[in-house]
This record gives sequence, structure tokens and C-alpha cells, in this order.
Amino acid sequence: MPWSTCWRPPPTADLGRLGLVKGSMELVDLGRSTAVYEGMGAGLEMSGGSGANTAVGVAALGGRVGYIGKVANDTFGATFRHDIRAAGVEEAHISMVPGSDAPDAEVATGRCLVLVSEDGERTMATHLGVAGALGPEDLDEGLLARTQVVYLEGYLWDQPPAKKALRRAMEVAHAGDALVALTLSDPFCVGRHRREFLDLVHGEVDVLFANEEEVMMLFDAQSFDDAVSGVEETGLLAAVTRGAAGSVVVAASGPVGVRAEPVATVVDTTGAGDLFAAGFLYGLTHGYEPEACGRLGGLCAAEIISHMGARPQADLRLLIKEAGLA
Amino acid sequence: MPWSTCWRPPPTADLGRLGLVKGSMELVDLGRSTAVYEGMGAGLEMSGGSGANTAVGVAALGGRVGYIGKVANDTFGATFRHDIRAAGVEEAHISMVPGSDAPDAEVATGRCLVLVSEDGERTMATHLGVAGALGPEDLDEGLLARTQVVYLEGYLWDQPPAKKALRRAMEVAHAGDALVALTLSDPFCVGRHRREFLDLVHGEVDVLFANEEEVMMLFDAQSFDDAVSGVEETGLLAAVTRGAAGSVVVAASGPVGVRAEPVATVVDTTGAGDLFAAGFLYGLTHGYEPEACGRLGGLCAAEIISHMGARPQADLRLLIKEAGLA
Repeated sequence: MPWSTCWRPPPTADLGRLGLVKGSMELVDLGRSTAVYEGMGAGLEMSGGSGANTAVGVAALGGRVGYIGKVANDTFGATFRHDIRAAGVEEAHISMVPGSDAPDAEVATGRCLVLVSEDGERTMATHLGVAGALGPEDLDEGLLARTQVVYLEGYLWDQPPAKKALRRAMEVAHAGDALVALTLSDPFCVGRHRREFLDLVHGEVDVLFANEEEVMMLFDAQSFDDAVSGVEETGLLAAVTRGAAGSVVVAASGPVGVRAEPVATVVDTTGAGDLFAAGFLYGLTHGYEPEACGRLGGLCAAEIISHMGARPQADLRLLIKEAGLA
Repeated sequence: MPWSTCWRPPPTADLGRLGLVKGSMELVDLGRSTAVYEGMGAGLEMSGGSGANTAVGVAALGGRVGYIGKVANDTFGATFRHDIRAAGVEEAHISMVPGSDAPDAEVATGRCLVLVSEDGERTMATHLGVAGALGPEDLDEGLLARTQVVYLEGYLWDQPPAKKALRRAMEVAHAGDALVALTLSDPFCVGRHRREFLDLVHGEVDVLFANEEEVMMLFDAQSFDDAVSGVEETGLLAAVTRGAAGSVVVAASGPVGVRAEPVATVVDTTGAGDLFAAGFLYGLTHGYEPEACGRLGGLCAAEIISHMGARPQADLRLLIKEAGLA
């Protein structure tokens, strides 16, 4: 889901007026997206999308990375394509379907209205648009076969064609020598697909990304420790993020806590998980130990939450160099 | 000219590759705008436009303000209209002409590609689009007649229909009790229209905004002091901005220097002059002395250059309260 629009500051009262729940991600149709937009304050627009943010983060760190996605032939789609290539994502395989910018267009590039509260927490109303129509036919199987890690967005599991695409991507990845990484994306998403996600983490998936809520939801755990035990039992390499409390990296040697990087002011938490995954995946594909992967993830997350938007603004390579992690 | 897109960091070498001169504003056609865009890095998009930024700034300070402009019926136009209203500009009279987002559209909302260098300086490639076609027929004369200050963008003087609109706006303003304020906008713009701008400042204009370069260009001055003498001779109320050196406010009692507000990091100078004008005009219409108007301008300029984009992100009312100027 490629596009984001951010607003601040929406007082909590405003979120209620717009029918949104603070901190949540709600899937909306284009009509509701437009209605929410009309009720929102003045904003700024930038490319986004969970998996795309991660890809851009890896590229910003100097990693080689590709991306597979789908946009419509409209302004947001054109800008998304421009931005991901300009950010250094070497192979951006972005299917483009006909579209227009007419307010009643039946086909549109996905867009996410992001309302950022004073405390930096983001609330999202997402219209998936054509991103949800990503299907197996949109996959570049050659790219998938020659990659080290194929990273999948849990968000897409909601959409039948996209789910098929994800299943096919896992097959191709494993037929090659690639690891399959999955992010659980959102607690509500986990709630909707708990059974299937459990099967995945006990089957096709090699690397798991989740936050505290998502992993507790997945393992139906009463405590975070119970959830971590659930992760350990899968035998996966996993990174569970806990906001200001840092992250827990679960590797063969057991779970290790990694503290969060200090941030002067949390401006906008949008993309924190996406950029954590970017840092972690960069580490994983460059020979770093699991704990160092977690530190890399924390550094990238700290950068992204210190400004509006989910695409890095600082020089991530310089950042990890200064932290002694380059 | 309503829309801006910002990029950073473009090394100076990149500006050269794109055929742009650091710190300048170049008018380009849609084809060249697209070509420059293709050569630029990943960006972020937001509403802009010199006069619109000023209007939004006045609204953010709590002032009552209107805006007259022109957009096409495309994505940028819709977002511009949304943002200016959402920012609290009470009367946004924005003519909308048919348009589309097709890459070869003959009619498009104006757009400004802003490249922000590491030192915060901005370089702009502006496609005026339909903004340049603003004509006398787009004026809401009722609004002009009941306003206190009609503020005009020098940038528009380049466009014959817009020039007619500005001339008519000055007539209507003076037929009512409004003051006419003019910003010289850009040194190259002053170079192109020096004779006419001199006639204006010795005639229709009551309040003048300019930066150091523009005012030196206007009065063909060898030194800044000579330029200030030129301003004094006009008898106008004037504010001349000097970047980090603050501003000089010229009033009936003579010129007064106002120091710049300290800024931790200059991120992006785009809109510094626009927001200076916003603070100054808010002061002027709320009974502040000229020097205090200059301080208000400096406060607003300091806010805008501390982040990307030319629309305020901080609470300007709080800012002037904390500075003891509310």
C-alpha cells in the first residue's frame, strides 16, 4: 500500500468525530477515505506503504533490495514509482493498472490517511486501492528466486488475490535458497487471520517480525513472557518490538532484550516497525549477529519516529557508522 | 502558485546536472518540470505557493484572511483547496479550471519543485500552470473591498492576465480603505520588471516586502544602506529581510533593525519570506508597532525554516505568546 498523507495535530476529539480509534489502522473504501480526508486538517503527502518503507530503509542503509507492488496510473501511483526508484530500490517491480484521478475513479492507487496525535501516535484510515489486487501474476519470480530474504506484509493477507501472491512468493523463495520473513503488521490483522498466521509461523516462515500486541494476539498469551515462549517454540528467528521499551530478539540461543535508541522527541510513530525491519534485515543479510540486527532495527526506528512520515530523512549509513555498527 | 514538492539532500553537483542554479527560482514549462522531477531524489509533497503560504501563516496566528488563486481540477488542485481551507483561511476564492492528471495535460495546477541543499538553501523550478492564468475575472471584488490589506505576489507580474488582475486588485483595494502590500518575490523577477515595480512603490503600493537582494536590485543600489535610503524616499512602510542578519523595518520614524530569531538548525529556507510577511501583516492588522511587526515576522520565519516545507507545523499562536508578543 503505497501512499501516505499525514496530519497533525488531530486532537483525540477529532479522531472520534472522524469515527477513528486512536492508534488503530482501519481499512476503508474510497468513499470513506474521501470523507475522512474532508474532515481532516491541512496535511503533507509522501510515499509510504509498510513493505515499501522497509525496502527504502534497506536501500538507505546501502543494502540491495527489490520491491513488488501495484499502483494505478494516477498522480499518487506516479509519485510512488518515482520515489521508490529515486530512493535506490534497485528492482522496483510495480505493476501499473489504468486509472484516473477523478474523485469517483473505480481504480486508484492505495492511500493511507495518517493522523498523528500530539504524543506522536498515529491513527490510520487505509484505502488499499489496487494494492489489494496484487496477484500471483504480478510477481517477478526471477527476482524472488535470486534474493536472500523475501519479506511479506501481513496486511496483504486480507485480500484474496494478494494472499495467493504471498503463498506463491513463499513457494518460489523456498524453491530458491531464500528465507521467508513475515511481519504480522497489525493486531487486528492478526485477530482476523490468527489460525493461518500460526500455521505460517510453524511452517513456511523463517523470520518473524511483530510488535508486542501482535505477538500476544497470535499466541493468545496473557503476558509478554508467555508470548515470547510461544515464539521460542516455533524455532524462528524473530524480532518483537516494544516501542520505548526496545525489542526482544529471539534466536537459537534464546531471547535477548535490546534497548530502544533514545529519541529527543517522538514526532510520528508511523513506520517505526517498517524501519525496524529494514535495519534488522540489513543486518541479517550482512552477517550481523541477531542482537546487532536488533540494534540496527532500533536505530532506524528511532530515526523514523523523530520526524513526520515513514521514509528516512537522515543518512542512515552515517547513523549506523556513528553508532559503531557499520 | 500552489503546490510544492521538496527534496533533500541534493548535492550542488546534482543541481548542475538538472540545469538549476543554487538558490534561484526558475520558471519552467510542464515538460521541463517533468524532466527535472525525473532527475530528482525521493521527495515529499505539500501545498505551497508564496501568497498562499502567507495566508495560511496569518490564519495560523489567529488572523482573519482570504485568498484568491487558481488551480486545475487535478490531484494537486484538490489537495491545495483542501489544505488552505483546513488551515483556517476563511475565504479561499479558488477558481478551478478543468484539468486532468495525464502527463501531457495542457492544463495543470501550478507546481514548484523545491530542492533543499544540506545548508537549508532552496532551489526552485516552478511551473506556474493555471496560476499564471489568474485574471481580473477571478477576483472576488467584494472580498478585496472589505479587507484591511490586499497583499500581492510580485511573482505574478510575469504573467499578462495575472498582471491585469493585480492592477485591478489595487484599484479595488484603494477604492475601499485597504492598504496595498507588495512582495518583490525574487531578484530575477525584480530584474525583469524593475521599471514597473519602481512605479508601483512610488504609486499604488503602501507596504513593501523584499529581501536584501531584491531591494538592492530595485534601487540599483551598490550597498544595502543605499537600498534602505531608496526605500525611505518612497515613504512606504517596508520590511526588508536579511536572512540570518534579521530584518530592517522602515517606518515613518526611520529604519529599525530587528534581529533574527535563533534557529537550532536551518532545515529548509523555503517560505521564509512568505512567513515573515504573515507575521508582519498579522501585526500590522492587530495594532502592533512596526518594530514588533518585524519581530512577529522573524518568529514566523524562524519556525518555517526549522522544518521542510513552507506551511507552519508548530502552533504559531503559542509561539508568539511565549515570545511575549501575543
